[in-house]
Amino acid sequence: MPREILTANPELDLVLERVIDVPRHLAWRAWTEPEHMVKWFCPLPWRTTEAQVDLQPGGIFQTTMQGPEGPGFTNTGCILQVVDKELLVWTGVLGPGFRPQDKALFAAVPFMMSALIAFEDAGSGTKYTAIARHGDVAARQAHEQMGFHQGWGKALDQLVEHAQAGHFGR
Amino acid sequence: MPREILTANPELDLVLERVIDVPRHLAWRAWTEPEHMVKWFCPLPWRTTEAQVDLQPGGIFQTTMQGPEGPGFTNTGCILQVVDKELLVWTGVLGPGFRPQDKALFAAVPFMMSALIAFEDAGSGTKYTAIARHGDVAARQAHEQMGFHQGWGKALDQLVEHAQAGHFGR
Repeated sequence: MPREILTANPELDLVLERVIDVPRHLAWRAWTEPEHMVKWFCPLPWRTTEAQVDLQPGGIFQTTMQGPEGPGFTNTGCILQVVDKELLVWTGVLGPGFRPQDKALFAAVPFMMSALIAFEDAGSGTKYTAIARHGDVAARQAHEQMGFHQGWGKALDQLVEHAQAGHFGR
Repeated sequence: MPREILTANPELDLVLERVIDVPRHLAWRAWTEPEHMVKWFCPLPWRTTEAQVDLQPGGIFQTTMQGPEGPGFTNTGCILQVVDKELLVWTGVLGPGFRPQDKALFAAVPFMMSALIAFEDAGSGTKYTAIARHGDVAARQAHEQMGFHQGWGKALDQLVEHAQAGHFGR
């Protein structure tokens, strides 16, 4: 896998890097199998009520999030790259089939991003690297102020709890 | 190669499909090797003065175009999918490393698109399918009114001429 794509630009990227006590193949499944994604993907009290993943370039990557009150909302993105159990890349800038999002969506959201999630062996656990990649400083700042570090960190805690609770069957 | 990604939505996509008298491996090289791209990529009197292609997911896809007068301008996009001699997908919505474009660019351009270029054997020639995929009807219309069919058709004529003139060496 080419690693240079994971080189972060601190002006434009936000990064969460942590070694977790979850085997790499289970961390991968937690990220790519909808039945597991819904258990951890949103930091509580938000919940992921639905997820859809077509794990190939151009495939859908969709999650529906629900806050403690009010209606849920659905983010529909596109899978860009899949290196089995090593790298998952998806973006909110494109929808399924690599179709650009409607221009109205770009205007409405506070920021757009691509997400690069890398998994490496670290003993019996996994070195987990999540990069939120933005197109301009304002987008990175907006995401940071919305609580990227706390939110993605807490979601990762939830992933670890879910895996350690033995929900994967094997 | 999954073919369903090539299913066009006539509301949102523009399609050029033609059988050309150029072997598939040369049509592929014309599209992916900068020294050949500059010979045909823009319909005359526009010219492509420079091209840069890093033929892997996340790699740069960049062309510089120059009109008969005035300065040139550079479009920097991102390679999304490469199926050797069969399918090339790139987008203007992302830059290299899958980074979203600066929000100011989205606001400034008349439309954004992803391009899917498919190559199939057709006797000794190639069935060539180019899909310009847009995010909303206004974008498709803007591209159509800018002359998609004539422009992409003429550029393809230039590709054929270039290949038939024997510039590939083998």
